[in-house]
Amino acid sequence: MPAKNDPTDLIKRVRRGDHVAASRALSIVVNDAPASEVLAKEFFKASGLAQKVGVSGPPGAGKSTLTGRLIGHYRSQKLKVGVLMVDPSSSISGGAFLGDRLRVMEHATDDGVFIRSLASRGMIGGLTHAIFGAIHVLEALGCDKILIETVGTGQDEVEIASVADTVLYVTTPAMGDEIQAMKAGAMEIGDIFVVNKADLAGKDKAVADLKAALGLGHSAGQALKAWEPPVLAASAKNKEGILELAKELDGHWKHLRASGEGRARLKRQHATELQFWIQRRVIKSALERVNDNILEELLSHKTDPASIGRKLLKNG
Amino acid sequence: MPAKNDPTDLIKRVRRGDHVAASRALSIVVNDAPASEVLAKEFFKASGLAQKVGVSGPPGAGKSTLTGRLIGHYRSQKLKVGVLMVDPSSSISGGAFLGDRLRVMEHATDDGVFIRSLASRGMIGGLTHAIFGAIHVLEALGCDKILIETVGTGQDEVEIASVADTVLYVTTPAMGDEIQAMKAGAMEIGDIFVVNKADLAGKDKAVADLKAALGLGHSAGQALKAWEPPVLAASAKNKEGILELAKELDGHWKHLRASGEGRARLKRQHATELQFWIQRRVIKSALERVNDNILEELLSHKTDPASIGRKLLKNG
Repeated sequence: MPAKNDPTDLIKRVRRGDHVAASRALSIVVNDAPASEVLAKEFFKASGLAQKVGVSGPPGAGKSTLTGRLIGHYRSQKLKVGVLMVDPSSSISGGAFLGDRLRVMEHATDDGVFIRSLASRGMIGGLTHAIFGAIHVLEALGCDKILIETVGTGQDEVEIASVADTVLYVTTPAMGDEIQAMKAGAMEIGDIFVVNKADLAGKDKAVADLKAALGLGHSAGQALKAWEPPVLAASAKNKEGILELAKELDGHWKHLRASGEGRARLKRQHATELQFWIQRRVIKSALERVNDNILEELLSHKTDPASIGRKLLKNG
Repeated sequence: MPAKNDPTDLIKRVRRGDHVAASRALSIVVNDAPASEVLAKEFFKASGLAQKVGVSGPPGAGKSTLTGRLIGHYRSQKLKVGVLMVDPSSSISGGAFLGDRLRVMEHATDDGVFIRSLASRGMIGGLTHAIFGAIHVLEALGCDKILIETVGTGQDEVEIASVADTVLYVTTPAMGDEIQAMKAGAMEIGDIFVVNKADLAGKDKAVADLKAALGLGHSAGQALKAWEPPVLAASAKNKEGILELAKELDGHWKHLRASGEGRARLKRQHATELQFWIQRRVIKSALERVNDNILEELLSHKTDPASIGRKLLKNG
């Protein structure tokens, strides 16, 4: 019998759809544990198989509930679903987020659904650091759809576009002026827009406003992309609009594959993944060489960051 | 007469307090233009001279108005003020933020105030990329106080703590549940808390809630830091509470210098600055070697990010 964390065995079991093995492999890859590279190398071969849907939008928009509904829909179609919840959690706020995510966790015991939280806190470049490795594990596990839920800060919105194939932007009729700025960033990256909580007043105005804003923001890009981002209304709570949303998501996935845009996006994702690999590797080895003596020299202005940085890199 | 961008001349002029020279030097440093390193090296010598105050908090909390009031207060004391506004702006949202910042811009023609916007969009690690260089220019220019205003995404909040000496967290009585999560992150990094818009209903409850939350979050850290983060109410619009706030800011600066905590923070700032210098340098040279052939090899799964990344670094 192979050892619990034997890489060859883990890889085999993940490919057979074993959730326990996937969970273990994910921890190894995300934490950069010793076997990480062997695993990542194998799992990378599955890259591009699943539709990666980024679920973005401001806190309070109901992203988790909507994600839960999408899981339910995909399961009714016998599709296998992976879910990555990217959490900017500190020790304090971690609990709050998990509470919001009960709707997703309902599916945690379904063996057609694999759910994992990733903490982005303190990572350079937020969510992007570990997420590619996690995605490839889920692809190797055989997931058809991978839902990636972010917490909806402006930074995350930009980054999700370099990770996902399809960016789903969620808002509500009640979202006020204070998130207009965040929305503006989303305009540029959203492929599908949902006004969630459509049971609240102001749904039609919110949809119309969003369409008008998109008309402005996308005028130049649309011709090239040949994809007009639809704006839907939905109520995840009341299970309304989920089927329509799933149809648009499938439509976008078909569009991506038919138009070549999917290949272009996958290429950009790989470029980003490579960048982050290089970055992490180099920084790790350079930082090992930063010691207190160096910092004291900086404090006393005997040297400066560029001079000492160059020296550290040379001795690498 | 020396050339317009002659580094030696620019450095001399910045040290004499010349705003035109500072503006030029800032552009060179932030954009990594050819003379950048020569300038950065000299300006680094001024590091640690000014109190760097990070003004953080959710969008809509009135950070810009409050920053404007603080500028006014410092100017009445004949102090020289530098202001860095970190903007997650895209081409679309850029305008909206500037509109909010009129209160700050009132001071743009005062020669005791130097104001500059920095776009964080697309930077790896958000605001940290260029901000250290900008700060040292302002220190060399002779600023006593440097106010750094961020837009208040969770990510920025964490990062401001590795840049500022004093983190001022701004909220309002009206800020609802949707920002609780953001607040939790702020709890850990805030040195001074302000409930702004204190003219609105619910001020006392907001102050009490914040104090209660701080009691929980800081119980362990407080003894070590020997600084109990004060919670103030203010109305920047009505010019109320500004003097009290300025007093607390001065108090924290004194505390930092007397306790050794200021030196420890400066050391951490230098460590971060060095990390970012290394990161930027290495990524730049590695990315120059990423070409379309490599990306095609990744797409066809002939290689994987770790294998190709290692090769790129070796040939560096």
